[in-house]
Amino acid sequence: MCSDFSKNYIKTEDLKMDLLFEDAGYFDLTTYGLGIGEKKGVMSFAPKAEIVLCGVDEVRTILNNLEIQHTFFKKNGEKVMAQEVILECKAEASKLHKAWKISQNIFEYMSGIATYTHKMVTLAKEVNPNISVSTTRKNFPTAKELMLKAVICGGGAPHRIGLFDSILIFEQHLNFFSDKAELEKSFKKLKYAFIEKKVAVEVESFEQALYFASLGADILQCEKMEYETLKKCITLKEQYPHLLLSATGGINESNIAEFAKCGVDFIVTSSPYHAKPLDIKVTIKEAL
Amino acid sequence: MCSDFSKNYIKTEDLKMDLLFEDAGYFDLTTYGLGIGEKKGVMSFAPKAEIVLCGVDEVRTILNNLEIQHTFFKKNGEKVMAQEVILECKAEASKLHKAWKISQNIFEYMSGIATYTHKMVTLAKEVNPNISVSTTRKNFPTAKELMLKAVICGGGAPHRIGLFDSILIFEQHLNFFSDKAELEKSFKKLKYAFIEKKVAVEVESFEQALYFASLGADILQCEKMEYETLKKCITLKEQYPHLLLSATGGINESNIAEFAKCGVDFIVTSSPYHAKPLDIKVTIKEAL
Amino acid sequence: MCSDFSKNYIKTEDLKMDLLFEDAGYFDLTTYGLGIGEKKGVMSFAPKAEIVLCGVDEVRTILNNLEIQHTFFKKNGEKVMAQEVILECKAEASKLHKAWKISQNIFEYMSGIATYTHKMVTLAKEVNPNISVSTTRKNFPTAKELMLKAVICGGGAPHRIGLFDSILIFEQHLNFFSDKAELEKSFKKLKYAFIEKKVAVEVESFEQALYFASLGADILQCEKMEYETLKKCITLKEQYPHLLLSATGGINESNIAEFAKCGVDFIVTSSPYHAKPLDIKVTIKEAL
Amino acid sequence: MCSDFSKNYIKTEDLKMDLLFEDAGYFDLTTYGLGIGEKKGVMSFAPKAEIVLCGVDEVRTILNNLEIQHTFFKKNGEKVMAQEVILECKAEASKLHKAWKISQNIFEYMSGIATYTHKMVTLAKEVNPNISVSTTRKNFPTAKELMLKAVICGGGAPHRIGLFDSILIFEQHLNFFSDKAELEKSFKKLKYAFIEKKVAVEVESFEQALYFASLGADILQCEKMEYETLKKCITLKEQYPHLLLSATGGINESNIAEFAKCGVDFIVTSSPYHAKPLDIKVTIKEAL
Amino acid sequence: MCSDFSKNYIKTEDLKMDLLFEDAGYFDLTTYGLGIGEKKGVMSFAPKAEIVLCGVDEVRTILNNLEIQHTFFKKNGEKVMAQEVILECKAEASKLHKAWKISQNIFEYMSGIATYTHKMVTLAKEVNPNISVSTTRKNFPTAKELMLKAVICGGGAPHRIGLFDSILIFEQHLNFFSDKAELEKSFKKLKYAFIEKKVAVEVESFEQALYFASLGADILQCEKMEYETLKKCITLKEQYPHLLLSATGGINESNIAEFAKCGVDFIVTSSPYHAKPLDIKVTIKEAL
Amino acid sequence: MCSDFSKNYIKTEDLKMDLLFEDAGYFDLTTYGLGIGEKKGVMSFAPKAEIVLCGVDEVRTILNNLEIQHTFFKKNGEKVMAQEVILECKAEASKLHKAWKISQNIFEYMSGIATYTHKMVTLAKEVNPNISVSTTRKNFPTAKELMLKAVICGGGAPHRIGLFDSILIFEQHLNFFSDKAELEKSFKKLKYAFIEKKVAVEVESFEQALYFASLGADILQCEKMEYETLKKCITLKEQYPHLLLSATGGINESNIAEFAKCGVDFIVTSSPYHAKPLDIKVTIKEAL
Repeated sequence: MCSDFSKNYIKTEDLKMDLLFEDAGYFDLTTYGLGIGEKKGVMSFAPKAEIVLCGVDEVRTILNNLEIQHTFFKKNGEKVMAQEVILECKAEASKLHKAWKISQNIFEYMSGIATYTHKMVTLAKEVNPNISVSTTRKNFPTAKELMLKAVICGGGAPHRIGLFDSILIFEQHLNFFSDKAELEKSFKKLKYAFIEKKVAVEVESFEQALYFASLGADILQCEKMEYETLKKCITLKEQYPHLLLSATGGINESNIAEFAKCGVDFIVTSSPYHAKPLDIKVTIKEAL
Repeated sequence: MCSDFSKNYIKTEDLKMDLLFEDAGYFDLTTYGLGIGEKKGVMSFAPKAEIVLCGVDEVRTILNNLEIQHTFFKKNGEKVMAQEVILECKAEASKLHKAWKISQNIFEYMSGIATYTHKMVTLAKEVNPNISVSTTRKNFPTAKELMLKAVICGGGAPHRIGLFDSILIFEQHLNFFSDKAELEKSFKKLKYAFIEKKVAVEVESFEQALYFASLGADILQCEKMEYETLKKCITLKEQYPHLLLSATGGINESNIAEFAKCGVDFIVTSSPYHAKPLDIKVTIKEAL
Repeated sequence: MCSDFSKNYIKTEDLKMDLLFEDAGYFDLTTYGLGIGEKKGVMSFAPKAEIVLCGVDEVRTILNNLEIQHTFFKKNGEKVMAQEVILECKAEASKLHKAWKISQNIFEYMSGIATYTHKMVTLAKEVNPNISVSTTRKNFPTAKELMLKAVICGGGAPHRIGLFDSILIFEQHLNFFSDKAELEKSFKKLKYAFIEKKVAVEVESFEQALYFASLGADILQCEKMEYETLKKCITLKEQYPHLLLSATGGINESNIAEFAKCGVDFIVTSSPYHAKPLDIKVTIKEAL
Repeated sequence: MCSDFSKNYIKTEDLKMDLLFEDAGYFDLTTYGLGIGEKKGVMSFAPKAEIVLCGVDEVRTILNNLEIQHTFFKKNGEKVMAQEVILECKAEASKLHKAWKISQNIFEYMSGIATYTHKMVTLAKEVNPNISVSTTRKNFPTAKELMLKAVICGGGAPHRIGLFDSILIFEQHLNFFSDKAELEKSFKKLKYAFIEKKVAVEVESFEQALYFASLGADILQCEKMEYETLKKCITLKEQYPHLLLSATGGINESNIAEFAKCGVDFIVTSSPYHAKPLDIKVTIKEAL
Repeated sequence: MCSDFSKNYIKTEDLKMDLLFEDAGYFDLTTYGLGIGEKKGVMSFAPKAEIVLCGVDEVRTILNNLEIQHTFFKKNGEKVMAQEVILECKAEASKLHKAWKISQNIFEYMSGIATYTHKMVTLAKEVNPNISVSTTRKNFPTAKELMLKAVICGGGAPHRIGLFDSILIFEQHLNFFSDKAELEKSFKKLKYAFIEKKVAVEVESFEQALYFASLGADILQCEKMEYETLKKCITLKEQYPHLLLSATGGINESNIAEFAKCGVDFIVTSSPYHAKPLDIKVTIKEAL
Repeated sequence: MCSDFSKNYIKTEDLKMDLLFEDAGYFDLTTYGLGIGEKKGVMSFAPKAEIVLCGVDEVRTILNNLEIQHTFFKKNGEKVMAQEVILECKAEASKLHKAWKISQNIFEYMSGIATYTHKMVTLAKEVNPNISVSTTRKNFPTAKELMLKAVICGGGAPHRIGLFDSILIFEQHLNFFSDKAELEKSFKKLKYAFIEKKVAVEVESFEQALYFASLGADILQCEKMEYETLKKCITLKEQYPHLLLSATGGINESNIAEFAKCGVDFIVTSSPYHAKPLDIKVTIKEAL
């Protein structure tokens, strides 16, 4: 399911060009200077430990752009065991050396995020099979596309891409209202202005949660709550059956199960973005 | 020293536009829907714990682009204590909300890298004041510019930006030579082809180190060596006084001092790139 | 309210450069050839008939880029009467002639869309004050940003920007299911996969509407229905109080009131995109 | 003749990437969420009524970029009858859904312009077989390339692409001359400065027309003239046999024949740019 | 006259960013490494010998982008004597060093072309005051904008920017016609298709010139003709008073006067593009 | 050796799009207007005199982009004799005319630089087989990539791409030091800051050379020295065996041998950038 999704990405073609240029620039001094550029070689990629693979589309477009013959043995979202070969390439050394490190970087970082996401999703679903895990817009600046894609390959979802695709009210919005009457009028207007969107509010206490549930919020994002408070908030679903609740703030693989147990509908986290890249061994040899 | 360096960045202007668009897209549904966009507000940024600051130029261009009045109280590369204010802004709520999260992301990620780099540099220099700490080209794809800049603000240096600015021979190059005679001829040619560059070779054993030192390598990059082997390699400096040696492979804040003690001229590491973003608190209030 | 929204646009800076180059290219043969480029002139813009203004941000960035002194007398979303001056500029003739036609085009096309949208919104709200008017993703290719902005300045909303920000099931999706069981399983999965989004389905009959309401659709988009069928669909709200219904297909200023009377929650239309540009008279004279 | 022309377009490759991203963004939530992305499907396009087709190159590059197998049955500039198939595609559902709406938009808008242009050209040539129909630079901002291409596919020509490719003097230029002597000197200089270009002047009365013909204008663009005045201007050709005259201002399919009858050499109009998109039905089904 | 023209350029803003990045990249190792970046300095530019200046707009945008205080003492198209100061700048050393070489390159190359063009124009006008000098589309690939601008600042004109702005028939077109009848029919069609353009034909003999004059060519571009043949072609103006004739092929400062004497209306040449850059001395000192 | 290097270029794909658009723009008026666009033709390229070829990759991507069938008979860096065919193409006239002039420009300019570089390298190596020839960063602004590539195809090397890849101290840096002690401290810091780079200094006298050699400079770039002074500087190698010396300032094919004889390790020159484009004859005929 995941692999077909990732084929859908659009900007890869453009992005790939930038990625290649970012690393290879105008030329490869070493390979050229050694005079080995025209020799034929083979290059293969294999993880040092089990991973959930991501980066296949980006690497493929790099290889296609450099006209490198290649075979992928694995798909995005697939588990790859230690030492299993992901990809094998055949081309002149000059091309292989251009593709090597940027391809390795793509696989290592994106699989790192996909694998970490997968772990969090698995831990959460063991507790509550219907729960979903979403990641925030706190991605590394410039890296939103690659990071979000890796999250999805790991079984997560984007919580919100940015300001333009969803509604989320923070304290930083509420501070602009001098009284409740003004806020309530605005809140109602907001619901009608973008009627096709759910309205989410970040809340930090049961009182806030109750208040916004009563105003008609569709989603309450419970920020850094104690488990007990969180559970109390969940009870609002009895009165507001369409209300969704999420937990956010410092959630990672070590505590996601605890949050899931509280009964939230989904988890919002940034921690997959900080997952360490996972080692992918790259072998380059002369083709005989 | 660092702050003037960072003012030198060139592509910030372009990059900033992309960063803003990546997060804000065509519009901000929440602020617009709530009808608070025209209210005047103040926004301030302060770290939750001590950091080495980075991201000032990028945030400034975002603020300038949105025509937000602002004052910076801190410079790139400067230490900022917990709760000290980095930056204060004044503008309509619509503008503040557009600038908020992307500015916070920039500060958090770049300061994370700068702070971690600074820690590694400090630990290494305590052992050897002349040592330098360089970071690899294993940055997150798309993020090279921001990551390298943060490294420099933390007191590190770029080891190599990419294939175009430096020479580094790996096993993946050596595999294209069938015998030593061929390699040695190529090695000599390489030295003349780009005579203004130092020639570096990645080596994994003392024997390799000795061999390439004898061929005239300028730099030996000692990959994942035991401390004892590394120390033995350093002794090559007696015979080859211009030879430089670096250690690389799995070096981070926990072990950098040990590597520095071995006597290498510099450390090559990717670990600052994986530093966690550091919390920056952002307050937005209505201006009275 | 609208004017502050429009200040929020981000890509204007980039877009403006392209807009200027699209029209002015490398140079202005006429002004240069006549030798009048260095003479000082004044330029003013005024509509020939009443309009809802849009394009202020785009024109301002063009003027700023050319360093043309100017004063805006009107804001985005404001009504401007016939002959009222929107904008006055003062600069060398060479600059005024560069800015003239592209600024006029921007005002004429964007105000055309804003004015038409405003008309449709007004007609719909006379019948149902809570109704909202959304426009489709059938914008002129390349013009999404400018067209959506004009819709919002006229009081409308984007129905969906593209595939990435919302969920809408068409017959073109349903054709991939061989039986109801498979569809129903997928539908349920979809609701959990992107739990923060409302799930919309395009339906063409009451039977379809009933079926998808029962499956848990959040929104039914009623495509080209007779008014009677549409009204019957609206009755589903009794049983499904959170259900939203919209009408779409061939809705424009001539029939929007009729559709609004049927009781839908919102209207989905492409017709504002085809609104004719509205005449803006541009006067350029020598400054005395 | 037309179809080969359109193959000549150059920026399509770049433009396509932007068009796809404009609509599809990072991902397609619906197709992915329903889990149908990997199923094979067929997609076909056919107009609901007769059209002059345009958009083939843009759609083809989109399909190629997504690696969608396809067959075009029609060419740019060709008439397509109602229900005749333009294009058939075969690929995974995930790809078809990405290509669907943007391809439909391209065909509908570009064919709308081509068809309308064709109608105007036909009406004008019935009266005067040598007349030509040119469109102005009042295209929708950002859409010049697609709009001009559609005009040409409909049998029209670009009047001027922008300021850089042609000379056209407006009242807005004349206002910078304080007396006739100065104007006449400048006019003469202009003729020599860009001697390879024809010099056009927009005139509003016979007196102006006579004056500029006598100065040596190559083209008189007669703006919003009564038919009688226009006919009188045409008589200037007796004295100035190389002089060309065009009519402009509010010309569309309803009155072009009347203007053509006056004897002008060509018509200048913006009305094809406002042509409504023409319905293209898109069918997507599972491939059996 | 020239200086106001050059202010008209549009893409400078974009171009400047690329120019700066092309030279300065991510950082300036030397200035940073020496630790002098924060010191204040002054930088001035002066030619070593008399030049016609070009490059003012491009350098100004670079200086503005780097926020360098500066004063220009000279304008585009102005003559600057040896040692006269063009420009003085004041800023931190880090900024001056970033701006230095790219600004110098811009001035040297663009003034080289402007000065050479000016020489050719002067030599030609001494013989025939009404002659004009146009340059071809054989510019260095990527450098069309800067090269054309320099030509104009030197008093020349663009002959044709590219395929899109003018009509010029070469032997490489004529080879597609199997007989004269077919050619003549096409030629006539061409005249009507783009009636606002002059039709130019490249001819190599008097017979060709006579033939195309009789078909109605507006311009004959006489390619590499002997002076006698050229003069004979000029006599065609007696019979075809609107006909224009140009000379092209190997024309430069050494022979332009001879060609001008033959009586052509204009000269077409590529030689200004190959003019050597002219030395501009750049002084950078610490500000006291 | 050279041909494989040039295959390594990365940005060609992007660059090509710009190159094509720069020349061809939206359409080709002549070919379209003549109605010959759909006829099949053949196009071939051959130099008028012996050249060292460069431009193969750029032209190939243009041809691929236009889907023109073609065969290359020569490689980058290869000598091509007068009249030998480099390339033969077969396609519709519309495509050939689009590709013609920009391809010719690429071959003519890049081969001009490659051929001139080759001449300088040959002359220098006749005197000293180990010498290398490097070109400066004084390339035509915007043309760095193409110019550097041509230099390498001619057997030269890039001296420095820009500020970011190498260290070179000029008088313009030294002017910021008020005394030697400060300079010497900074110099030492610089050596450690970027320990992987060689430190080069531009010197104008033996005294300067001696001074910087004693400070530990790796490279002395001897600017515009008399041959005798230069030879005296070379004697510093006796005392500083790792020291490299280069000559720069006004070096071209007429004097490079003299400089080489002085014993420098490499030559730094800008003169290949000003090499005249070399004539490539392009034949286009109808295919029979």
